[in-house]
Amino acid sequence: MRRWAFSLAAEFGHVDITDEVARLVEESGVQTGTVTVSVVGSTGTVTTIEYEKGALRDLRRALDEIAPTTAEYDHNAAYGDGNGFSHVRSALMGPGVTLPVVEGRLVVGKWQRVAVFNLDNRPRDRDVMAVVVGD
Amino acid sequence: MRRWAFSLAAEFGHVDITDEVARLVEESGVQTGTVTVSVVGSTGTVTTIEYEKGALRDLRRALDEIAPTTAEYDHNAAYGDGNGFSHVRSALMGPGVTLPVVEGRLVVGKWQRVAVFNLDNRPRDRDVMAVVVGD
Amino acid sequence: MRRWAFSLAAEFGHVDITDEVARLVEESGVQTGTVTVSVVGSTGTVTTIEYEKGALRDLRRALDEIAPTTAEYDHNAAYGDGNGFSHVRSALMGPGVTLPVVEGRLVVGKWQRVAVFNLDNRPRDRDVMAVVVGD
Repeated sequence: MRRWAFSLAAEFGHVDITDEVARLVEESGVQTGTVTVSVVGSTGTVTTIEYEKGALRDLRRALDEIAPTTAEYDHNAAYGDGNGFSHVRSALMGPGVTLPVVEGRLVVGKWQRVAVFNLDNRPRDRDVMAVVVGD
Repeated sequence: MRRWAFSLAAEFGHVDITDEVARLVEESGVQTGTVTVSVVGSTGTVTTIEYEKGALRDLRRALDEIAPTTAEYDHNAAYGDGNGFSHVRSALMGPGVTLPVVEGRLVVGKWQRVAVFNLDNRPRDRDVMAVVVGD
Repeated sequence: MRRWAFSLAAEFGHVDITDEVARLVEESGVQTGTVTVSVVGSTGTVTTIEYEKGALRDLRRALDEIAPTTAEYDHNAAYGDGNGFSHVRSALMGPGVTLPVVEGRLVVGKWQRVAVFNLDNRPRDRDVMAVVVGD
């Protein structure tokens, strides 16, 4: 188990944590199992993506269409904190990802990286938990 | 392991099961691991969200754009059961969520709740399974 | 643990692997736990769906709206491989799914099937990993 805190920019701040997750898996001693990586909170997500500028911008644009930052949200009307879009995006994507561990290693494709996203409308220190289970 | 049945309204019936999941985690005795919570069936989902009326309505509105209830679906044309939108929404969101268990407790943020959604076009008694794994 | 390779068509090639996953669960001897099924790579996904032509076409249509094949993507501008839409779709849906194992069996609903999708813009032999954890 490991807990990290990452300072991430507002709206779509992101960080590639593949190396940290791979190291945790190796140190855990688990040979066959899974690793779950999850943001603590309801305005972030963890998923896998080819971590390059273009694909990241494309994902941001898709999220901007699904839940535009400038739309009207009932959450904002009630709380005035302006992050209604963040809650929708996070609920749709889910807070985290579970990946296979085989022969003591994290299994990801050549270009597949594990990335944390702060979807909130303000910069956040995001707590991320990773847990390895298995034998 | 626990199995619950929740009577949920059509289209977007929801229930906050965070307390039930947290209790299951504590009773399991697992100190470090994960808990997976999943709807049994292909027209529901479990995710995390700030469980307040506004954010819930906002999520519903986003789903209404992604897969409108009134659009034409090939599933409906073939089966006439009218829940084509439900299948699309559930496949996109996935049936469940996996969350970390640390120091014997479910890890969620202050406002992050575990919620079950019935996405079907009729009221359903939804079976939900939760399983804790780890040590 | 099991690793399969499936030859899948471009854009939305799919295969129902429920029987393979159920067999793996039974052979694992795990009575209570989870099974995680995940595509290796950043242009595929695994989810559950009623595996019939109509619902599959409906899901494809929804993905075509969320991230159209013909839109402009920064990923394509940088790499020229034309699969920007694939990366967006896969990042949004996530690479895999985790399902409950109870009384030694995979828990799915009557119509709920586990399906692998190749979302890339070319036919691919997709590696899929499945891992059972629990007791």
